[in-house]
Amino acid sequence: MSALLVAVTGTSAQAWYDRFREAAPQRDIRQWPDEIGDPAEIAYVAAWKAPHGLLKDFPNLKAVFNLGAGVDQLMADPNLPDVPIGRAVHPDLTMRMTEWVTLHVLLHHRRQPLYMTQQTKRIWKGHDQPAASDVSVGVMGVGEIGADAAEVLARLGFRVAGWSRTAKKLPGIEVFAGMDALPAFLARTEILVVLLPATPETEGILSLDLFRQLKRDGALGGAYVVNAGRGKLQVDADIVTALDQKILAGVSLDVFPVEPLPADSPLWAHPGAILTPHNAGDLSPRDLASNVIGEIGRLEQGKPLQHAVDRKRGY
Amino acid sequence: MSALLVAVTGTSAQAWYDRFREAAPQRDIRQWPDEIGDPAEIAYVAAWKAPHGLLKDFPNLKAVFNLGAGVDQLMADPNLPDVPIGRAVHPDLTMRMTEWVTLHVLLHHRRQPLYMTQQTKRIWKGHDQPAASDVSVGVMGVGEIGADAAEVLARLGFRVAGWSRTAKKLPGIEVFAGMDALPAFLARTEILVVLLPATPETEGILSLDLFRQLKRDGALGGAYVVNAGRGKLQVDADIVTALDQKILAGVSLDVFPVEPLPADSPLWAHPGAILTPHNAGDLSPRDLASNVIGEIGRLEQGKPLQHAVDRKRGY
Ligand SMILES: NC(=O)c1ccc[n+]([C@@H]2O[C@H](COP(=O)([O-])OP(=O)(O)OC[C@H]3O[C@@H](n4cnc5c(N)ncnc54)[C@H](OP(=O)(O)O)[C@@H]3O)[C@@H](O)[C@H]2O)c1
Ligand SMILES: NC(=O)c1ccc[n+]([C@@H]2O[C@H](COP(=O)([O-])OP(=O)(O)OC[C@H]3O[C@@H](n4cnc5c(N)ncnc54)[C@H](OP(=O)(O)O)[C@@H]3O)[C@@H](O)[C@H]2O)c1
Repeated sequence: MSALLVAVTGTSAQAWYDRFREAAPQRDIRQWPDEIGDPAEIAYVAAWKAPHGLLKDFPNLKAVFNLGAGVDQLMADPNLPDVPIGRAVHPDLTMRMTEWVTLHVLLHHRRQPLYMTQQTKRIWKGHDQPAASDVSVGVMGVGEIGADAAEVLARLGFRVAGWSRTAKKLPGIEVFAGMDALPAFLARTEILVVLLPATPETEGILSLDLFRQLKRDGALGGAYVVNAGRGKLQVDADIVTALDQKILAGVSLDVFPVEPLPADSPLWAHPGAILTPHNAGDLSPRDLASNVIGEIGRLEQGKPLQHAVDRKRGY
Repeated sequence: MSALLVAVTGTSAQAWYDRFREAAPQRDIRQWPDEIGDPAEIAYVAAWKAPHGLLKDFPNLKAVFNLGAGVDQLMADPNLPDVPIGRAVHPDLTMRMTEWVTLHVLLHHRRQPLYMTQQTKRIWKGHDQPAASDVSVGVMGVGEIGADAAEVLARLGFRVAGWSRTAKKLPGIEVFAGMDALPAFLARTEILVVLLPATPETEGILSLDLFRQLKRDGALGGAYVVNAGRGKLQVDADIVTALDQKILAGVSLDVFPVEPLPADSPLWAHPGAILTPHNAGDLSPRDLASNVIGEIGRLEQGKPLQHAVDRKRGY
């Protein structure tokens, strides 16, 4: 009698449900909001931006699975039941995020926006190009995704450092840990890549105060921010100010405090800003659904989840 | 009495000369055209686009060093003396080329031009994004540079194959060799990366006939060409036709048959074309000058050049 409820808001709800049916045709799978049935039969919920309060009504709930990498919306549910929470970790997701990060770091490093502007004016003109080995990239958040992106950037020759909450060792990459080490990490960083989760500690961290601490007199002659973590990390108004005042030379943003980004945001038309519609790490529902089914199998064999949220740290 | 003549045309002539002086302050280094002195004293020439015929006048010439990766202009000298020709190979050059290739493959793969257009219209809309593992990239020319670029593209998850003149083994990359294997290589390739030298065999190879053989019904739903090899490989008019007729969905070009690209070329304003001014692999004169000095040292110890042009194959 242990049913899996798929509770997804938005246009892809049906697609997610269909993928779960494919991944586990034998299982009792139900689709929120119409097919909940007896709440006592719901043992698992696979959720994406499900309404707060929904989960507290399932007395026999054993686990919740978050269908995206960012768990902030789920964790903000004041009635979140005390059950294990599965995280979306998948090599395919990590690869997609690394693609996006690599693309946007290279766009700024190679001054591609400048060459695109020149092209519209039919200007043939090269500009001084530092070698990657003279450019310092700093990756804020070197978890599943950040560590992978850092590895590719190091392979391309960049001087890569990471910043995380706890100390860790990554081959060829210096990792700074904790708030005390943040100033030193920022002072060496020309291109700041942000792959942090949104937690009470990290919200609003991408502020004017932080941007001012980045290295502006390095090989690139300016500082850049590339954020694919979470929109709540960043203060949009501070980004605009920093670009206007040349504290930042350019940004790439996939995430925003309010999504979709409102039509009247000055970021849309800012020459220093490259925006994408929160699709850096578009998940493949098929892959993730079979992952969740695999995790449920582990629980039913008495094993712990392979990828679980740590409730105390909040990600 | 063995002098090194630096014979560079263009604006960077003085910079090259200065770098050679720095790299070997003890050596007799002369600058073409004003400081040749006694032609019998010239044992080495470091050349970039030096006029044809210049080299034949040095009776004691021991070697010529080409100060760029493409040797086509030098090899076309009908009076080229029969001495070893050093090639510009440097990790830094290779890294820069790999950066450019990675950037442009990702630009097309991630539909970045479409997102940039959407941004100008304040449109927030994601599009289907295949995983790199579903996209086939083909690298034409897997020499020093192509092999490195192929390795990074494979690390990003792309299905990478290579094409070369002679058979070779690259870890995780299928290599097709020779003209007979070209159709099979093209038929599997959605993004064609070109890192060939210009030789009598390869000139004009990037033609409508070739573009038609690329895979258009793959994960990306179109075929792309990314050329940082040599301009003479490509027929510009065929690229325009292929883009107009949707035989190609997009191109990135760093090189052109005529450089600078003439202001009236339709490529400048073509929505499917991304152009850069032959700066994919801008060399660092400092690094390359010390490389050349090192190679001269090898010759003077009776050793062969580490990186020499094979005159028969022409690259
Ligand atoms: N744009 C998109 O489409 C998209 C897609 C997927 C994911 N994301 C975002 O990417 C984020 C990272 O994903 P992931 O799978 O790599 O997460 P993860 O494995 O949990 O890694 C998070 C990293 O952030 C660090 N961190 C967290 N709080 C910190 C703090 N207060 N101070 C310093 N470092 C802190 C962690 O430090 P420790 O290593 O010390 O724990 C860890 O290195 C997700 O949270 C999500 O928001 C976005
Ligand atoms: N845009 C720029 O700024 C820039 C900068 C640097 C270099 N480049 C260009 O990049 C090219 C590659 O440089 P590299 O150092 O990698 O050269 P390389 O080591 O000589 O490699 C050339 C590759 O092309 C293949 N090839 C040559 N002729 C061929 C033919 N007829 N059919 C099939 N394959 C053929 C070779 O095959 P084999 O392996 O069988 O010999 C080899 O794999 C240079 O020639 C230069 O034109 C451009």
